[in-house]
Amino acid sequence: MNKLKLTITMSLDGYVAGPEQSLENPLGIGGEELHNWLIPLEAWRKDHGYEGGEVNASTRIAEEILGNVGAVIMGRNMFGGGPGPWSDEPWKGWWGDDPPFHAPVFVLTHHAREPVEMQGGTTYHFVTDGIESALEQARAAAEDQIVSLAGGASVAQQYLAAGLLDEIVVSVVPRLLGGGARLLDNLGDPLPELVQVEAVEAPGVTHIRYARA
Amino acid sequence: MNKLKLTITMSLDGYVAGPEQSLENPLGIGGEELHNWLIPLEAWRKDHGYEGGEVNASTRIAEEILGNVGAVIMGRNMFGGGPGPWSDEPWKGWWGDDPPFHAPVFVLTHHAREPVEMQGGTTYHFVTDGIESALEQARAAAEDQIVSLAGGASVAQQYLAAGLLDEIVVSVVPRLLGGGARLLDNLGDPLPELVQVEAVEAPGVTHIRYARA
Repeated sequence: MNKLKLTITMSLDGYVAGPEQSLENPLGIGGEELHNWLIPLEAWRKDHGYEGGEVNASTRIAEEILGNVGAVIMGRNMFGGGPGPWSDEPWKGWWGDDPPFHAPVFVLTHHAREPVEMQGGTTYHFVTDGIESALEQARAAAEDQIVSLAGGASVAQQYLAAGLLDEIVVSVVPRLLGGGARLLDNLGDPLPELVQVEAVEAPGVTHIRYARA
Repeated sequence: MNKLKLTITMSLDGYVAGPEQSLENPLGIGGEELHNWLIPLEAWRKDHGYEGGEVNASTRIAEEILGNVGAVIMGRNMFGGGPGPWSDEPWKGWWGDDPPFHAPVFVLTHHAREPVEMQGGTTYHFVTDGIESALEQARAAAEDQIVSLAGGASVAQQYLAAGLLDEIVVSVVPRLLGGGARLLDNLGDPLPELVQVEAVEAPGVTHIRYARA
């Protein structure tokens, strides 16, 4: 069965977004800087239509995020457009007409909506019947590739607490954010058990891969 | 000047001790298991009077903790014996007659007390005039070796927020504790800035070394 995998960048104090998230600042104060290890990479730039860039120990991790993904799951807060029912001219994500997913994206929401087809192979599907259903649909769509859990923190917590996450790659950056969205909170009882699979030292970041114990 | 260094093991969700710390369970529920990477090592066992043990990528980190330490600073909560004034038969630490420090230990407390000399080179000094004073005294005692900040979380936070920590080695273990003492909280404004110096992959743990930016 296709693996469900979370690849996420976390500040050393445990946040995946900074305080005061807003429409202007979707990752909160300091949140954008979490991804300073990723953006300069050739692997990321090429995927986003730019030339040049760096090649280093993070390249393999970035290529994993960018390739071999057959379907994506994300929460409504990450998809954006504010909470509550969709408006008449509804929000189509933060990522423009040609989003970087190139795969079906299953958005968890309480508010039903028809699928939206974007350019480049991304179609947004809106799932209102819970995380298991979203995973089932994503697995069916992913064929022989992995299902990527894109975030945010709350959705990641729900999948982790439910024992549905097969693999987590946490990219720990040397930043302190002091507040915001914590990745590893509200994980239920008993707590999920993990094993460390590998750690990768790279410039300005340490990638640690965990599997379900 | 002697470096002030914190070497501490942290759960993936950011705790250095589990919930419900008590006299019977000083590291809280699940807290002892944080150090499962350290205890089987030959380096640790030898230092504590045992033979045999493992040698792996953590050995260098363990040897650093155990050697080259000229003085130790710790908080009253870590030293133990409960809060408030010292009793008539006062507490002499968790570590028996021959504690593993083999160096002067400066205990931050609000309650004055005469120094206590233990076996093996450990003397407990009780400092009531704050973290700068403890650091000054520890530096004077450490001669050409480092000053080790032993913890707990609250004292580590105070030194980090004050910009007095030169180096931090965080040993991240694949455990979730779900509650307890968080290392990286209450770090003030502006937040301390760190740079990543190295990351060491080892069995069941990833050691990440940070320096002050």
